[in-house]
Amino acid sequence: MSVTAPLGFRAAGVAAGIKDSGARDVALVVNDGPSYAAAGVFTRNRVKAAPVLWSTKVLSGGRVRAVVLNSGGANACTGAPGLEDAQATAEKAAELLGVPAGEVAVCSTGLIGERLPMDALLAGVETAAGQLSRDGGLAAADAIRTTDTVSKISFRRGEGGYMVGGMAKGAGMLAPSLATMLCVLTTDAAVEPADLDAVLRRAVAVTFDRLDTDGCMSTNDTVLLLASGATGVRPDLEEFGKVVTGVCADLCRQLLVDAEGATKAIAIEVIGAASEEDAVTVGRAVARSNLLKCAIHGEDPNWGRVVAAVGTTDAVFEPDRINVAINGVWICRGGAPGDDRSKVDLRPRDVTITIDLSAGPHTATVHTTDLTAAYVHENSAYST
Amino acid sequence: MSVTAPLGFRAAGVAAGIKDSGARDVALVVNDGPSYAAAGVFTRNRVKAAPVLWSTKVLSGGRVRAVVLNSGGANACTGAPGLEDAQATAEKAAELLGVPAGEVAVCSTGLIGERLPMDALLAGVETAAGQLSRDGGLAAADAIRTTDTVSKISFRRGEGGYMVGGMAKGAGMLAPSLATMLCVLTTDAAVEPADLDAVLRRAVAVTFDRLDTDGCMSTNDTVLLLASGATGVRPDLEEFGKVVTGVCADLCRQLLVDAEGATKAIAIEVIGAASEEDAVTVGRAVARSNLLKCAIHGEDPNWGRVVAAVGTTDAVFEPDRINVAINGVWICRGGAPGDDRSKVDLRPRDVTITIDLSAGPHTATVHTTDLTAAYVHENSAYST
Repeated sequence: MSVTAPLGFRAAGVAAGIKDSGARDVALVVNDGPSYAAAGVFTRNRVKAAPVLWSTKVLSGGRVRAVVLNSGGANACTGAPGLEDAQATAEKAAELLGVPAGEVAVCSTGLIGERLPMDALLAGVETAAGQLSRDGGLAAADAIRTTDTVSKISFRRGEGGYMVGGMAKGAGMLAPSLATMLCVLTTDAAVEPADLDAVLRRAVAVTFDRLDTDGCMSTNDTVLLLASGATGVRPDLEEFGKVVTGVCADLCRQLLVDAEGATKAIAIEVIGAASEEDAVTVGRAVARSNLLKCAIHGEDPNWGRVVAAVGTTDAVFEPDRINVAINGVWICRGGAPGDDRSKVDLRPRDVTITIDLSAGPHTATVHTTDLTAAYVHENSAYST
Repeated sequence: MSVTAPLGFRAAGVAAGIKDSGARDVALVVNDGPSYAAAGVFTRNRVKAAPVLWSTKVLSGGRVRAVVLNSGGANACTGAPGLEDAQATAEKAAELLGVPAGEVAVCSTGLIGERLPMDALLAGVETAAGQLSRDGGLAAADAIRTTDTVSKISFRRGEGGYMVGGMAKGAGMLAPSLATMLCVLTTDAAVEPADLDAVLRRAVAVTFDRLDTDGCMSTNDTVLLLASGATGVRPDLEEFGKVVTGVCADLCRQLLVDAEGATKAIAIEVIGAASEEDAVTVGRAVARSNLLKCAIHGEDPNWGRVVAAVGTTDAVFEPDRINVAINGVWICRGGAPGDDRSKVDLRPRDVTITIDLSAGPHTATVHTTDLTAAYVHENSAYST
């Protein structure tokens, strides 16, 4: 299960006392090889947390022996001392595991602007190193939770018998979402770093990058893919890409249904776009409309708010050729009222909004949630 | 008061039965001259309501004799029939007033995607025409309210004795905000259309354009400036611009404190920017952070969410040179923790967030509100 489903990986999750609650807050994932190939995708926010700066440097080498993750503090906006803390964390794990510190990635999530309690964190890394096991994937996934109500894990078998596993936390997308998205993927297939990088970038682009719960981009978002090569299987890269994308999509779905305060999972399906980029742009604009997200929360098929959001983009379309369906009922045709809005059933949790731009053959789907009083409550009271 | 404070203007506001509530819903503003010079600024949304399309054409002529405004329906996304409705409205007013229909502007606000009840609207225009008076400014301001809890009016005297008056409705900015912003400004100064246009564009750019309550851009936003020339005063244009901007800023302030569900009025003051455009970009990005808006609602000085929003922009800055103050306390210095956050008092309704980019001499202030459960409630239940 989780990151230890593939051969060649051990993991642990422990309570180091970083969180006041006493819950698990430090995870360690170790690649026992024989390969240490790795790739990473990081937040596009220009304000990057110290662990992102550290891990970007580590991943530039294409090899990762271990990943240390903590919840309870983001180590973002902490200046030079924060960067030293990230490095010290990697060095501690490296020393315990007998590997180079330059091959240990670090991920953090929690409140921005506060130093990590390093004594507790380093002691936690030591405890975790002592508890590493082939069964540790679940504990590791548990230790990276912040406001997540459940752990998110996934695994899938590829052709020839290799495995891809993963764990994630967060209530949003890679970028956006300040509710930091951390994800560690593992595989026992044998894949070179450059190929892992290409596969991971494409998988992230069509999964985590199309999950937008609140339009806020975190300083800490990180997705890592580690390959142990323990099965010796060298997969077809296209097939491998599908398996990795499948695991990412599964984790995305779990993030979506656990998003802060959400009562609806909304798929915004854009069809008839002049380009895939246009389709994503339109989907994202609609996903970020607070007014629409409120309307869906109120089970109100307010398609005017959909069309108004489309109108803010620079995508190719003519206003009088836009069609919009909500849960299969085409309530807007040619930019004007279509079928009877009373036919739309918005009671189910899953909502699909289909937007036909009538401008080309391209499509994309962006996922979001409704905006609720519970979201406001949760995010009004997070740090205090 | 309102649009009838300057000489040469009459107005009326009546209940035509468009709103189920029986409240006033049709306003008429008439310029009795001797000049009919006018300028307009419209939504940048590419999906434009029928009245916006009609009025844009009217304003291209630089002359406006009358403005018909209605609440209770936006006449947006209504196709060719909606455009005919807007034209018929102008023609009705033109006939009653004995002026060319091509010099009658039309503004609508309300739900998108439904035809207006034309019988009621045209009868309302007739009633309003019969009630036109020099005292009608308040009734007109009342008739354009939707979710506004109070009417918004303002007036100010310029050098030489001319007057600028105005009324507005809405809970947001010119563009953004789907809670349509309508504003009619009047003056009895004598100013040519081209000069009115330049003055209005600049005034809007530094007032309504910097008010962003929920990041949603309406299909109907309209700001009109009508000059009767009734005093014969030809103002210095710079001085005139200051007076017009003053009236706009006053109306903005009224819109901000009446924004849907808001409990805080937040000024995001960006200083040290490399350009005014950078300052506005950063202010707007921060104003649109749902997470920050929730934090301020919870009276939590969560400056990490400010810095994270800044990081999503392409403005010129170095992450480790950003300083942030909330209500005067510099809790972030050099991108890292600064003064003690417990010193920040967030209990007052007015909140000022100052962001120093340390990148140049330019500044701009963007205004927004907090995000509240009341906002969610109001916008969950708007059309149903």
